[in-house]
Amino acid sequence: MALHGHSLIGFSQGSNSNGTFSGMNPVTGAELPELFYTASAEDVDRAAMLAKKAFETYSTTSGSVRAAFLRAIANELEAVRPLIAERVPLETGLPEGRANGELGRTIGQLRMFADLVEEGSWVDARLETAQPDRAPVPKPDLRSMHISLGPVAVFGASNFPLAFSVAGGDTASALAAGCPVVCVAHYAHPGVSELAGQAILRAIKACNLPEGVFSLLQGTGQEVGAPLVAHPAIKAVGFTGSRLGGLALSKIAAARKEPIPVFAEMSSINPVILLEGALSERSESLAAGLTGSVGLGVGQFCTNPGLVLLPEGDAAEAFMTQFSTQMDSASGGVALHAGIAAAYATSIEAKHQHGSVETLVAASPTKGAEVAPSVFRTTAAALLQDEALAAETFGPSTTLITYADTDELVALIASLEGQLSGTIQYAASDLPLNDSVVSALRNRVGRLLLNGFPTGVEVCAAMIHGGPFPATTDGRSTSVGTLAIHRFTRPFCYQSFVSDALPAELKDGNPLGIWRLVDGKRTQA
Amino acid sequence: MALHGHSLIGFSQGSNSNGTFSGMNPVTGAELPELFYTASAEDVDRAAMLAKKAFETYSTTSGSVRAAFLRAIANELEAVRPLIAERVPLETGLPEGRANGELGRTIGQLRMFADLVEEGSWVDARLETAQPDRAPVPKPDLRSMHISLGPVAVFGASNFPLAFSVAGGDTASALAAGCPVVCVAHYAHPGVSELAGQAILRAIKACNLPEGVFSLLQGTGQEVGAPLVAHPAIKAVGFTGSRLGGLALSKIAAARKEPIPVFAEMSSINPVILLEGALSERSESLAAGLTGSVGLGVGQFCTNPGLVLLPEGDAAEAFMTQFSTQMDSASGGVALHAGIAAAYATSIEAKHQHGSVETLVAASPTKGAEVAPSVFRTTAAALLQDEALAAETFGPSTTLITYADTDELVALIASLEGQLSGTIQYAASDLPLNDSVVSALRNRVGRLLLNGFPTGVEVCAAMIHGGPFPATTDGRSTSVGTLAIHRFTRPFCYQSFVSDALPAELKDGNPLGIWRLVDGKRTQA
Repeated sequence: MALHGHSLIGFSQGSNSNGTFSGMNPVTGAELPELFYTASAEDVDRAAMLAKKAFETYSTTSGSVRAAFLRAIANELEAVRPLIAERVPLETGLPEGRANGELGRTIGQLRMFADLVEEGSWVDARLETAQPDRAPVPKPDLRSMHISLGPVAVFGASNFPLAFSVAGGDTASALAAGCPVVCVAHYAHPGVSELAGQAILRAIKACNLPEGVFSLLQGTGQEVGAPLVAHPAIKAVGFTGSRLGGLALSKIAAARKEPIPVFAEMSSINPVILLEGALSERSESLAAGLTGSVGLGVGQFCTNPGLVLLPEGDAAEAFMTQFSTQMDSASGGVALHAGIAAAYATSIEAKHQHGSVETLVAASPTKGAEVAPSVFRTTAAALLQDEALAAETFGPSTTLITYADTDELVALIASLEGQLSGTIQYAASDLPLNDSVVSALRNRVGRLLLNGFPTGVEVCAAMIHGGPFPATTDGRSTSVGTLAIHRFTRPFCYQSFVSDALPAELKDGNPLGIWRLVDGKRTQA
Repeated sequence: MALHGHSLIGFSQGSNSNGTFSGMNPVTGAELPELFYTASAEDVDRAAMLAKKAFETYSTTSGSVRAAFLRAIANELEAVRPLIAERVPLETGLPEGRANGELGRTIGQLRMFADLVEEGSWVDARLETAQPDRAPVPKPDLRSMHISLGPVAVFGASNFPLAFSVAGGDTASALAAGCPVVCVAHYAHPGVSELAGQAILRAIKACNLPEGVFSLLQGTGQEVGAPLVAHPAIKAVGFTGSRLGGLALSKIAAARKEPIPVFAEMSSINPVILLEGALSERSESLAAGLTGSVGLGVGQFCTNPGLVLLPEGDAAEAFMTQFSTQMDSASGGVALHAGIAAAYATSIEAKHQHGSVETLVAASPTKGAEVAPSVFRTTAAALLQDEALAAETFGPSTTLITYADTDELVALIASLEGQLSGTIQYAASDLPLNDSVVSALRNRVGRLLLNGFPTGVEVCAAMIHGGPFPATTDGRSTSVGTLAIHRFTRPFCYQSFVSDALPAELKDGNPLGIWRLVDGKRTQA
């Protein structure tokens, strides 16, 4: 399959007159030969208007129709697995094994949402029976459920070219919710994006769904994404990426005549707390585990542990030496693109030059888009004084801080911005866990984990991949797991409606057999 | 019980050095004798900081503790019913019967949320069992539920001095969610606000809850509300009021270092569509019903039908004559405060002077805060050209428009901003309902009702009182009904947690017996 390089505007190709760009192989630094065409203003408008038109019918499709569609996308992706596995390394430097694994996750996500909407109870159907004789006023028949919000703009992330990109979790959950998607491909992997976009288009056609349920725009966020978010037909935004990018989109969304929600997953340093017992009991395995977690995916994971808090003392000093040795001999890797490598270099140089920071492991010299592991140490006082020290460094780096006592630990946690995750490493001797520590951490994060490492995000009904600002722009949401669908729905009420015109989820007799709340009772009847 | 006029900052009284104001009797135009003291900047800060402190413990209280608390508030309100029923008419001009009815609704809302959190399933608990032997990576134990968001700022509405005010739906749902509340009393009914605030404080003490779970600030939104919304301790805002006010608060909330969600219910004209069959079959009862709905509460309801769409022809002309006659002889009333009467006068004068608008019923001359019913007529073309004609006129007024055919009706609906409700009046001969009309209306509203009138909002599990912007700032929410609790929660995940430290909702063995989703199965086991 040759890549044609055009945006996919409904069933037709986008403009070829608005300039071109190419992917770049971060390993070799060489431009890839294929040309891609930046979407024009007309492309953006046409994609959004097609999505608006498609919404009229797609939003009313049944759960089984959407399930078949999501499974068709999964199958179409599986069918081009060899092409994807070949293209991902070229555009991102990620190894073929990772590409295959991430494709499996992407396919798994699509099938998970297919199962969810096929079963159907997710709409939270609620029925209240009319009481025409109630005094002083009759009670009307009321039925509510979650319905589709409208066309969604999805921004592909650089660090998960499949699972958080064109056919990733945002797209899967929006399509499951009944919302057409206009996706902005990440400019660093336009070819992988086209492959995924073509797979979605084939699934639309195979399922006889209307043109406009999906479009793919090639180009940069600034040039293509900004006008898309401003377009009146777009009703929500899904984004995973930098804080700068997420906040820029939020600003555009808020300034619209009709403001729209932006679900941007942006920035997190995922604090890991080592309690005294854990440190004394399994210092070696903690050092090894942390080294693995910091370096996973060359440190380019949203859940990368960028801050480690240890109780001060000899055990902490020994751990830091041990950990630094391991990090020093760990290999770095090639960043997803040159921009990330440059930002990493700037960030670690700033820490290195900081008066209150000690460099434990200096990143060894690299070339091109390579990045090498680094470790820093600073003090609780310094962190409390300079919040820049708690800013995310995207790459294989972490910062260690010792705390004097529980009060200082709680103060350190409370000083942090919102995070995707927080981790406590404990041993039996650390139990029961200190309530203040757990409570302070809970207030700052979306996921609290014990004796694990934050990298590795399970895709399931109970996963929450979100957290207070700036981990996300909306801490009341998750971008992973089945709950992610509710970013793109709204509750809707039918009052005294005629049965024929009600959606199946709310009809008398419960034809879908879903779980509903009927006059206060949860029932499948 | 004498009114002391101070803000209620936790368990103590607020400042008396920041100026005073008084309520005004809108019927007589006379200032009421009691003085109220505008909260100082220190009061605002102290209330917010007390709420932050109280959150630490209150957010972890069980559903039964919160249920007992909400019921205690309900009982304390009931205990001061005579005082409230006496004070409401003085400050708002609303009759004593309405005060008693609205107090009943307020008490009912508190008890509804008490039942909800006592039962406990609302937290949407989800458990995924660990699979330590899964390849290639083990699956961790994951458990999620909705937890409290943080301290909430609530703004009392002028038009429901009880049900949407100090102890109203926003406060009830926030307290049910485990969030302390700092309430800004509406300056037009400070005495009623103090009575409700004192009732909440007595309930806090009776239930041994910490100081700061509730505070009440006296003063105006600009002076007191703005710094409250900007305060870092506040994590969400509930508001019912004008578009201007809601947007101003949204702007402050978005400009914070940590932006927070604002749930503002602001502006709606609640279109009512009369289909041909309905018009020919029951023109008289429709005219009577509409007259009642437009005039209910002197037109000061969020769900007031401000736009009526009829199929053009003789029947429409006859209906308009009939309706105008009834509206002309309907009595107006006294607005809640002079500001509303003045805004009503300005709004209807602008319509009266508009070149494309015909005045069918001119408001008869009034004095003081009185307002009289008015009816206008314009054309579809005029509405499509000038969106100012679709702006809310707060008071007993509506505008009629005839449509040529279904296409024009759909275009008219599509041109409207987001609405709380939309209504279709049909007869058997109008069935089946036209899909395009239903679909266009569904896209614009939060509640779609048949053969009823939009005023009268049932408080129950299936009610949605929300809708696309500008009906609310967040169309993904409702401010009435049990779902309103989710404005003030966020999903949270515990990974590999020790059973002792888990909340009861997520513990093994389901000690609360709530409905949970366990490995994909809904169960009470």
